[in-house]
Amino acid sequence: MKIGFIGLGRMGAGMARNLLGSGHQLAVYNRTREKTEALAREGARVADSPVEAARGSEATFTMLADDHAVSEVVFGRDGLASIPDPAPVHISSSTISIAFARRLAEEHGRRGQPFITACVFGRPEAAENKKLVVVAAGEPETVDRCYPLFDAIGRAAFVAGPAPWHANVFKLCGNFMIASLLETFGEGFAATRKAGLDHHRFLDVMNELFQSPVYRNYGATIADQKFEPAGFALKLGLKDVRQVLELALELGAPMPIASLVRDHLVSAMSHGQEAQDWSSVSKVLARSAGLDDEATAKTASA
Amino acid sequence: MKIGFIGLGRMGAGMARNLLGSGHQLAVYNRTREKTEALAREGARVADSPVEAARGSEATFTMLADDHAVSEVVFGRDGLASIPDPAPVHISSSTISIAFARRLAEEHGRRGQPFITACVFGRPEAAENKKLVVVAAGEPETVDRCYPLFDAIGRAAFVAGPAPWHANVFKLCGNFMIASLLETFGEGFAATRKAGLDHHRFLDVMNELFQSPVYRNYGATIADQKFEPAGFALKLGLKDVRQVLELALELGAPMPIASLVRDHLVSAMSHGQEAQDWSSVSKVLARSAGLDDEATAKTASA
Amino acid sequence: MKIGFIGLGRMGAGMARNLLGSGHQLAVYNRTREKTEALAREGARVADSPVEAARGSEATFTMLADDHAVSEVVFGRDGLASIPDPAPVHISSSTISIAFARRLAEEHGRRGQPFITACVFGRPEAAENKKLVVVAAGEPETVDRCYPLFDAIGRAAFVAGPAPWHANVFKLCGNFMIASLLETFGEGFAATRKAGLDHHRFLDVMNELFQSPVYRNYGATIADQKFEPAGFALKLGLKDVRQVLELALELGAPMPIASLVRDHLVSAMSHGQEAQDWSSVSKVLARSAGLDDEATAKTASA
Amino acid sequence: MKIGFIGLGRMGAGMARNLLGSGHQLAVYNRTREKTEALAREGARVADSPVEAARGSEATFTMLADDHAVSEVVFGRDGLASIPDPAPVHISSSTISIAFARRLAEEHGRRGQPFITACVFGRPEAAENKKLVVVAAGEPETVDRCYPLFDAIGRAAFVAGPAPWHANVFKLCGNFMIASLLETFGEGFAATRKAGLDHHRFLDVMNELFQSPVYRNYGATIADQKFEPAGFALKLGLKDVRQVLELALELGAPMPIASLVRDHLVSAMSHGQEAQDWSSVSKVLARSAGLDDEATAKTASA
Repeated sequence: MKIGFIGLGRMGAGMARNLLGSGHQLAVYNRTREKTEALAREGARVADSPVEAARGSEATFTMLADDHAVSEVVFGRDGLASIPDPAPVHISSSTISIAFARRLAEEHGRRGQPFITACVFGRPEAAENKKLVVVAAGEPETVDRCYPLFDAIGRAAFVAGPAPWHANVFKLCGNFMIASLLETFGEGFAATRKAGLDHHRFLDVMNELFQSPVYRNYGATIADQKFEPAGFALKLGLKDVRQVLELALELGAPMPIASLVRDHLVSAMSHGQEAQDWSSVSKVLARSAGLDDEATAKTASA
Repeated sequence: MKIGFIGLGRMGAGMARNLLGSGHQLAVYNRTREKTEALAREGARVADSPVEAARGSEATFTMLADDHAVSEVVFGRDGLASIPDPAPVHISSSTISIAFARRLAEEHGRRGQPFITACVFGRPEAAENKKLVVVAAGEPETVDRCYPLFDAIGRAAFVAGPAPWHANVFKLCGNFMIASLLETFGEGFAATRKAGLDHHRFLDVMNELFQSPVYRNYGATIADQKFEPAGFALKLGLKDVRQVLELALELGAPMPIASLVRDHLVSAMSHGQEAQDWSSVSKVLARSAGLDDEATAKTASA
Repeated sequence: MKIGFIGLGRMGAGMARNLLGSGHQLAVYNRTREKTEALAREGARVADSPVEAARGSEATFTMLADDHAVSEVVFGRDGLASIPDPAPVHISSSTISIAFARRLAEEHGRRGQPFITACVFGRPEAAENKKLVVVAAGEPETVDRCYPLFDAIGRAAFVAGPAPWHANVFKLCGNFMIASLLETFGEGFAATRKAGLDHHRFLDVMNELFQSPVYRNYGATIADQKFEPAGFALKLGLKDVRQVLELALELGAPMPIASLVRDHLVSAMSHGQEAQDWSSVSKVLARSAGLDDEATAKTASA
Repeated sequence: MKIGFIGLGRMGAGMARNLLGSGHQLAVYNRTREKTEALAREGARVADSPVEAARGSEATFTMLADDHAVSEVVFGRDGLASIPDPAPVHISSSTISIAFARRLAEEHGRRGQPFITACVFGRPEAAENKKLVVVAAGEPETVDRCYPLFDAIGRAAFVAGPAPWHANVFKLCGNFMIASLLETFGEGFAATRKAGLDHHRFLDVMNELFQSPVYRNYGATIADQKFEPAGFALKLGLKDVRQVLELALELGAPMPIASLVRDHLVSAMSHGQEAQDWSSVSKVLARSAGLDDEATAKTASA
């Protein structure tokens, strides 16, 4: 298939490369052009604007930081929405609010442009290694048609429902499940450390109990206090948790753990952790228990 | 080895059977004698009192409901602590408070009786199938000597630390990790259901993401609303979460998610759920979101 | 002084009347003109647009529902900001977000238009009876000059700081203090009712203890379950608490009680309470304790 | 009336003095005898044991630290419960758990000894100045008979219900209302301080709004950071909040703010604040917002 791809950050770059590797023709656009070079060498065409990347494609992905960035790329000058008939399917993979996902659907609908979502779970390494979990949503026939693309970027694909925002609900709720785990680890580790016990040993037990790679990876990050470089910056984690809470409000379903995590992320921001991995929310719990951060670091390196 | 085993509830019965199956000689005691019959047929000696089960053994397990039950069996008439020299190792497997675990250690120490803990993670099926995760703690040489027994009952064994109560910290913190997961699922499911989406589908995605048997089992229980018969009764779950909070207090490590779960378990008790599985705490979240329990049941059976 | 007044809702009407009663000349504007009639009879000039109400005045108040309404009246067609030199002082009395208060200051500043805030605490009856508590903020000399106007509408006036948004911080934090009280009453009443005790009696004790009119008024509303007609609709209360949480985020100061109240207001919305008084958040606690709303109503009327 | 009084701590001493000042005959007992001296000079008889203080009296108060202390004084050697017929009315004024209040009622009932509660609200100064708020409970005729005593020690008296533990519900829920206020002030002050504003000014506004002496006193303590000497030690505050949560559990009424305050008091304990006033829970919020305690002190003294 002929594919457009807009947004070559750490996640987007891996996804684009795997699409290319699966034999699709690719046109890419990124605001800072340097990031397109590696893909160009592998055969991707480099476009000068979103609309140029989309033109002639059957489907065009957007994988960007937030609502605002997507809005600019879609509705801005030379944006995706300005493409003349027949428009490609716009596949939104960004983590956006459900309010904005609904607006995207409306606007594309008014213009007669096909639009679906394909949210992804996984860290940049998973994107690189075709190990993402893909959650798509939208008009069933269109989703079906794009299914081979999901296979090209992930290890499994699911359909959340018939409206594009449905995938965003799954994505945000999934991120909430992870955020809750980070907080939970933070509390458990703080308690075991205050008991004078080895929290790495506690992690070993939890790994045997839960047998989950997510527990293994985040558990190790927190136990070792390796919060830099960030896999996912705390500041972005806070953005996501705020979107979870907006979702909870719009749907009328209280999510008190999300509220609790939000408060702790705000505290983390006030202690200068915005660029650290969001699992460093665990340090808020350590401080609350009177554990010294430096002592922590020493234990970790010992 | 010659082993005593006191407490043949759903967990204890499976553990005792596996000890027997590993070639150990077993003397068993249970308050209600009927529960000893199956094991007697398999070769266990049935004792009339705790002290009689322990007499002549190298190690004697206690696997009972709570602090109070253990206290009676150990310090009551014909209790374990009344055994004359040389006393067997008392291996406490019950989920007890750390305050009581410390008291047990003191009392046994005063009497010169060896005492360790061997807490277990796993449901009754896991106990039956030798799949428990064992966390032991106590004087290292004694723990080493008992290691073959842990192998006989579980799939993996860990040592938490040199004091018996250390294993109770790991056990309570581990139960806390599960309790937090139940609450988290409850919030995520309530949100997806209010969005009009299929929460079984959401569970499929979470299973792909977390790849954990704990998520799979509890997730299915909650999604299907199969809270009876209870794997672990909500009332007992509340007991454990209260012990987690006592631990948090004694150690000086706030555990706000434990507080939140406690409050929701109290609400569940007020809605008559004490005998349901503790994962039914999710119904508190459903009610809070204005979801009708009966509608829920219908969705589940559909 | 010559005064413009925009927004004659339940609060604005009382404030405007008291300005008129203190001898000031008044020009009023309201989107729905009927609300201006009573004031016109008392001598106010009725304007056809915001800018016309402001023209020729020394100071013009805006007292509107939210950020959006203020934005329209200020920056919309025939808005306040379009007034030619010399502009009157714009006195914003609406409960707006601090982000928007800052933007107002910037925009007026760019245009060389004087701008201060004068937030008010009190219910419509207090507005009517000149009993508001006024919190002003902005350039000190301008605030001083407008001080007589605050005297005309309230029983006391305070200055929060030199930037207009400072008063909004005080206003939102004050509303938070009240919201916390409503939640607290809800929890206390639920407990006393579950104990089988008379919660009106409990309120008598709390009134003797706290001796506060705020406790007396809200306490009676909750004890009597008189949530309609609403003094302040729950839906608006949720708007305010959300602004409190945005403030907490921007300032980097976690406010966990605000999070908790927000979650409970969301639950109340899901149970159809949006038009009831925001003190009906107490019903969320009653439901959580398994108390029947109808039984409650009966007790209340008994 | 002939009155016994057991427990001459800061609260008890004031209450005893006012009983004496109202013309009652008083026999007093205190574990450390020095505290009886001042009252002896004013005419009180000093007893050598609880039972000796009670003997011959019509009513005997106990005003002690906790369940344990009351238990010892009542059921210990030479305890109140050992008094022969006719026993005086035992009036329990201590802040005890409702479980223990029920046990007291049972035990006295079995012995045919009259028992009521008369809990008090107020700081030591209020006890000294006859300004306590008294909440009594128990068999109506007995309560009526003791009413003059309540008049002698307080500014107002209320009856909670016909069972002695009913007053303890009111007392614990009242303390909860105060604890919630301390947390609320902590959050509000942290936000206003992070905004760069004067939190003393904010307190002025809140005092005008709430007009409550409780707000005035605690607000000033927190704003000035005058946590030593403690009016009510944080460690005792934690004891009370734990009793509130036990009450919530027994009654089946979740009290999430109590949970939140408990967690923050635990954090305060971990930061060495056990002997400071319980309003220093506000420092937990300040730390969470990244506010420096020393800077705080400087601001406070400036």
